[in-house]
Amino acid sequence: MAKIIPLENNKDNFEESILSLKELCKEDLNSVDTLIIEKLDSNVPLVQEIGKYLILSGGKRLRPLLTISSFHLLKGKNLSTHNHIGLASAVEFIHAATLLHDDVVDTSKERRGNLTANEIWGNKTSVLVGDFLFSRSFQLMTKYGNLDTLKILSDTSVVISEGEVLEISNEKNLEISEDTYFKIINGKTASLFSAACQVGGISAKAKKNEIEALKSFGINFGMSFQLIDDALDYISDSNSMGKNLGDDFKEGKITLPILLAYGRSNDEEKNFWKRVISNLKQETGDFNKAIKIINKYHCIEDTITRAKHFADVAIDSLSIFENNLFKNTLIKLIKVSISRFR
Amino acid sequence: MAKIIPLENNKDNFEESILSLKELCKEDLNSVDTLIIEKLDSNVPLVQEIGKYLILSGGKRLRPLLTISSFHLLKGKNLSTHNHIGLASAVEFIHAATLLHDDVVDTSKERRGNLTANEIWGNKTSVLVGDFLFSRSFQLMTKYGNLDTLKILSDTSVVISEGEVLEISNEKNLEISEDTYFKIINGKTASLFSAACQVGGISAKAKKNEIEALKSFGINFGMSFQLIDDALDYISDSNSMGKNLGDDFKEGKITLPILLAYGRSNDEEKNFWKRVISNLKQETGDFNKAIKIINKYHCIEDTITRAKHFADVAIDSLSIFENNLFKNTLIKLIKVSISRFR
Repeated sequence: MAKIIPLENNKDNFEESILSLKELCKEDLNSVDTLIIEKLDSNVPLVQEIGKYLILSGGKRLRPLLTISSFHLLKGKNLSTHNHIGLASAVEFIHAATLLHDDVVDTSKERRGNLTANEIWGNKTSVLVGDFLFSRSFQLMTKYGNLDTLKILSDTSVVISEGEVLEISNEKNLEISEDTYFKIINGKTASLFSAACQVGGISAKAKKNEIEALKSFGINFGMSFQLIDDALDYISDSNSMGKNLGDDFKEGKITLPILLAYGRSNDEEKNFWKRVISNLKQETGDFNKAIKIINKYHCIEDTITRAKHFADVAIDSLSIFENNLFKNTLIKLIKVSISRFR
Repeated sequence: MAKIIPLENNKDNFEESILSLKELCKEDLNSVDTLIIEKLDSNVPLVQEIGKYLILSGGKRLRPLLTISSFHLLKGKNLSTHNHIGLASAVEFIHAATLLHDDVVDTSKERRGNLTANEIWGNKTSVLVGDFLFSRSFQLMTKYGNLDTLKILSDTSVVISEGEVLEISNEKNLEISEDTYFKIINGKTASLFSAACQVGGISAKAKKNEIEALKSFGINFGMSFQLIDDALDYISDSNSMGKNLGDDFKEGKITLPILLAYGRSNDEEKNFWKRVISNLKQETGDFNKAIKIINKYHCIEDTITRAKHFADVAIDSLSIFENNLFKNTLIKLIKVSISRFR
């Protein structure tokens, strides 16, 4: 059984890996930022203000990075198109809209250490600016995409919202199956990762099997990414991934570590979970007790094992592509994200 | 100056006019309903449930009717396409998504005499099911539309959300210009009317000047429709247009009758408006007093005069089309909607 020792060094390696991917995509990423700023323009000042606050206040730009690197993974040297820039921006707009609506839904007060938009401007405005961002993404897709990318992104939007509703329908329900949980995070995270990769590939005129490979890469990377994010809530500090230790726990959010722990708990422990998660009645010391039970049943190790499974599939999906700097950097990113835990 | 006598007979005539348009479009409207039900299908039961509650619980289907009748206004006898059915459904999905998010925003408890979705399922779910409906509309457009219709509908979605944010930014502000108010209702109502007409025309392979005509028809019909709706809040009963007398007033919603009345009020009356609208401190008898001031300054007549202006432009927009049953029914609908007030 693996031991969980989240080393500072390894954490840095993950951030470093993202930075090397960003470095590799620097030019395109700048273009994406320019286009995003251009498209946040609105003659309604509040729309602009919130959009900028949201999109420009940090964030890893991971999804646009996936679009850009998928494009370059494939691109023949002679292909001069900028459609992937527009599509990468569209993907980031969808992501931002989702975050905005998520925060309304969760009544979150902070994200990445900043106040959420709904804390500053109110839920009303957040819902509508989310709609604006979503509509903007749609404009971008129409302009820079084709019927294939439009289909992928609109299908993905449906999957995202279904995933969110599925999550809410099962809020506080400690007895959902792992399969249902996977469906939820597929909707919340993996589907947009996958779409981001596919539209990048399509912009580079990928063949059908290549698009399939990118689809699989994105889905599995996304699943792995989300599971690691789940685990980090119970072992990380506030510097990594922009989350604070125990954020999910405080909200009573059901994630895989909790699901596994609940399933393996004895009656007394099960009652504990019901109190702190289902009824959200938390006292001082509860978080430490939660971690104790989670560790007793090796739930972080097993969450990481699941994540590793998806990471392995993601990496193998890339095997049909020739080795190049983009492919190697993507693979390294995934490997490092897992190897933080050992 | 016109006298406002809302006669039952004339009101019936308006409902009757919509019914004759529906009768004329019956076959297509049935197809739209079939497609809507098909597309409300989701493997997340709650999504389906709310979608059906929302879309199937009434509503005039005015926007799909506009798409269908614009299509038939133009259609050569030999044109056999069903794209307008898909686009009419997409338009209704956008409308439904907007309503759902509007109700969250306004924390409305009733719409058309039914409880709003957010009253039954909560705000959380309403936001996300709204997103689902919006995503579905996008799927439909991608499937049944072309680049032109996609551009129109995505541009319209941006205008709608900007209009809503503009409205919220100016909530309770009695001193906005009439022009700002027109911008708001252009976003809230007229833009989707216009898009509905345009995509119907494009499905029928309309020429550029015909699309321009439909665009103008839709915008102006929408403006006129919204202004009449505003007026009805102060003279109607709960049977017409699905609204209750005084609904807008109770919410402190700023509409043209209020804006005109405020502008023409003396100091004492201005203070009254500030109390009941800006501060939303209403007492028994306030609604009657509001109506008194509104009538004193002929604000309903003048709202109707504005509506008539837009209605006239709408009707003239159709002049480039040959006379046919669809054109005549549309014109009659608009004429009747105005002639209720005389």
